[in-house]
Amino acid sequence: MSAAETEIAVSTVIFALRVDEPRSPITLSLPLVFRTREPFDGRWALPGGPLGDETLEDAARRTLAATTGLAPAYLEQMYTLGDPDRSPDGRRVVTVVYWALVRADEVAHARPQQNVRWLPADDLPALAFDHNLVVEYALWRLRNKVSYSRIAHALLGETFTLRELREVHEVVGQRELDPANFRRQIEADGAVVATAEMRTGGAHRPARLYRYNADVEPVDLGPIARTAGIGKPTRSAP
Amino acid sequence: MSAAETEIAVSTVIFALRVDEPRSPITLSLPLVFRTREPFDGRWALPGGPLGDETLEDAARRTLAATTGLAPAYLEQMYTLGDPDRSPDGRRVVTVVYWALVRADEVAHARPQQNVRWLPADDLPALAFDHNLVVEYALWRLRNKVSYSRIAHALLGETFTLRELREVHEVVGQRELDPANFRRQIEADGAVVATAEMRTGGAHRPARLYRYNADVEPVDLGPIARTAGIGKPTRSAP
Repeated sequence: MSAAETEIAVSTVIFALRVDEPRSPITLSLPLVFRTREPFDGRWALPGGPLGDETLEDAARRTLAATTGLAPAYLEQMYTLGDPDRSPDGRRVVTVVYWALVRADEVAHARPQQNVRWLPADDLPALAFDHNLVVEYALWRLRNKVSYSRIAHALLGETFTLRELREVHEVVGQRELDPANFRRQIEADGAVVATAEMRTGGAHRPARLYRYNADVEPVDLGPIARTAGIGKPTRSAP
Repeated sequence: MSAAETEIAVSTVIFALRVDEPRSPITLSLPLVFRTREPFDGRWALPGGPLGDETLEDAARRTLAATTGLAPAYLEQMYTLGDPDRSPDGRRVVTVVYWALVRADEVAHARPQQNVRWLPADDLPALAFDHNLVVEYALWRLRNKVSYSRIAHALLGETFTLRELREVHEVVGQRELDPANFRRQIEADGAVVATAEMRTGGAHRPARLYRYNADVEPVDLGPIARTAGIGKPTRSAP
């Protein structure tokens, strides 16, 4: 098989925190698209599609917007999959995977297609193609390569309570944390700083709002991102 | 332009330390291939070539071996470039870039083709395509995303003196370091540990040999690498 017969596609893994019912635990979720044709008819797949006459990132944005209505401020290229036997119908497909973290309010404002659903990242059914592996890799990167302050900022937004921050740590790290120890660690660490504001209302008593401390950890995505005009240090980059 | 007309290629960035003359400073270098056809006839380019009926990594290995004779224990996928205007002859080429760190003795034992030369990473001419940007990105990743202990191990081998380790830090970090301060930091850090052996002979007085402390920083390349059978924690992974 020559390289000319190889198709190029993009897929995206988009993580957000979801609270499906009041007082229910938050869940790390991602949007998936229900397939209605072979291969993998009837399975869920990552949003994506074939590369058009555009950049790889623009292809990821176009297919993501078409399915989920989401337009994340920043997509990061994650990995390219190209094993010859990835597609069971004999096609050779090389897929460039992008990923992003988005806040719950971005998800709430997006208009997904009918065949799109947010499913919990740690309890997925068998997905189409090698997409379970792709999600596993994205989770691994989230848990190992991205600092908690960046994760918290990208998923929670500008300000958040220590309880919300702890819940993010618990969901991403898949373990419970002692609230008092967590508060001491966070305050010693300096990655987030207290604001003058309080969160009032809701199920809990008023709580101090914190914000991500951009001074501690400026985000630099490297020369390729800078050339593309997306990489200048920004507090909204996940 | 449809995706079917897009070509897929691989390129590799291979860093090694080179000492061209005795007592001359070590240089971070990479192998480049002299192009003898358009586009970019007469310029240097990264080793690589079109994807065949193989995995992306196998394509990188095949083209790297054909040009440089190198067979690194571990290649890491770095980035995929796919802007529509990357090639000036109108072809749409998506290039998956791999990178690796290799030791000087691996380079010495390899048999490169005649049109291959090792050039210093921080003093390159204008390369073919967007390969200067690719090298810049690889250098940025080397300087920012890879710990110094891993870099030292991958470039120096199993054992090394503190002088050698400091020279690697100086070359990669592009700054001079005070030897006494450096020694104190390294000994406090625990990322390398002293062995019972000494390096004797050569231009310097006998010096203690150190080794990389795998306990401090087990290398885990994530689920995709594990699935491919290349990612189990290994001390030789850069």
